[in-house]
Amino acid sequence: MGKIKLSEISTRAPKGFDKTETKEKTAAIIKELDELQNLLYAEGKHSILVIIQGMDASGKDGVIRNVMGNMNPQGVTVKSYKAPTAEELSYDFLWRIHNHAPKKGMIQVFNRSHYEDIVITRVHKWCDDETAEKRIKAINDFEQLLTNHNDTHILKFYLHVSPEEQQERLTERLSDPAKMWKYNEKDFEEAKLWDIYMEMYEDCFNNCNNPEWAIVPADQNWYKEFLIATKLSELLKSFDMKFPGLKK
Amino acid sequence: MGKIKLSEISTRAPKGFDKTETKEKTAAIIKELDELQNLLYAEGKHSILVIIQGMDASGKDGVIRNVMGNMNPQGVTVKSYKAPTAEELSYDFLWRIHNHAPKKGMIQVFNRSHYEDIVITRVHKWCDDETAEKRIKAINDFEQLLTNHNDTHILKFYLHVSPEEQQERLTERLSDPAKMWKYNEKDFEEAKLWDIYMEMYEDCFNNCNNPEWAIVPADQNWYKEFLIATKLSELLKSFDMKFPGLKK
Repeated sequence: MGKIKLSEISTRAPKGFDKTETKEKTAAIIKELDELQNLLYAEGKHSILVIIQGMDASGKDGVIRNVMGNMNPQGVTVKSYKAPTAEELSYDFLWRIHNHAPKKGMIQVFNRSHYEDIVITRVHKWCDDETAEKRIKAINDFEQLLTNHNDTHILKFYLHVSPEEQQERLTERLSDPAKMWKYNEKDFEEAKLWDIYMEMYEDCFNNCNNPEWAIVPADQNWYKEFLIATKLSELLKSFDMKFPGLKK
Repeated sequence: MGKIKLSEISTRAPKGFDKTETKEKTAAIIKELDELQNLLYAEGKHSILVIIQGMDASGKDGVIRNVMGNMNPQGVTVKSYKAPTAEELSYDFLWRIHNHAPKKGMIQVFNRSHYEDIVITRVHKWCDDETAEKRIKAINDFEQLLTNHNDTHILKFYLHVSPEEQQERLTERLSDPAKMWKYNEKDFEEAKLWDIYMEMYEDCFNNCNNPEWAIVPADQNWYKEFLIATKLSELLKSFDMKFPGLKK
């Protein structure tokens, strides 16, 4: 894989995707996901970690609600990572992450993740380059640990919005009563740091690429949801699962 | 460091160590440890992970009681690892270990540890060589994570008893009312696997040696306790700690 440059990747659906048609397809996949997840849980062999990253207003919550929200909550857990607490800071940065690794049979979704420890922290210079380099190595080792020692399959999604779309959505939060609760006065300040954010994300994609990231064009929710549902469904199908028989 | 061969390392104190004199020294060190640990806790900068491994009846519990037992329990926690539960087995093998990593300011003691996942498991062929190799790599990565990302200092002690001393102690458990509770009929069976256990431990020392292991001659409790108290005290002193001033 060549080096990823976000500015060269479209934030919109490729030509030829029809919105209505795609939405119908997504609905069918989401129905299937429910059955596949049930099988994953029953079999208890594999586990899936879905990591969702993206700028403010890139639609992380929406993906979780619309794509993951239809499966049995007993088998799907979501962990949202915020700024680390004083308690969490008294451990290494992966401690709070490992604590929420998926058990066998489970789908664990991370709304933000350990990647914040090499993105926002570097944008604001809370973390120097030397520390970031060590963290990158530790993240790669950690993802290999989950992969090799618990058969955890990691899907990493970056929700790729354009700065224009982000501004529109942030502004909407100021006027839409259903979205006002999401408004944070810092968001507009953060948005000004767009270029450096992109650079730090590109660093993640290029240095932490085993497994690789999926860069998801995210200006249109219908396309974003279709793509993520498809990837998840393809992964689940690749397990070739069967309901276990009676226990002897 | 050359390859470690346990059969070439004495299980007894080196010549010139007087029992009474050494015991007095140990008592003085243990007194000091209490103050040093208090400083570690107050400063909240460093953390220590003490890993204690050894064959049955090598004196792991005794070290914990006699060397660690004098410090403030608020700053010293002990985790004994037994055979993993079904819950623990549904995660990667380091999940239950990471969960008990020391916070800043703390001393965490492991009575047995992740090393069981490459020792007893290999002795009994519950784990094949390929898996063991992957685990060794994962253990090294994990210990580096703690070291580099939370300033955790890891002390690894192998309590080195002779098979003769072990037999004597196991037999004592059959007749000493204060020790009967420790008797496990499987212990004598396990003891027959001595040579293969030694080989698997040597593999740990040679492959997971960053930080290095201390092989502690353990036939005499007084010498073993002296050595471990000394190592812990030396480590604490190396931090050059100061009580923090008033918070601004």
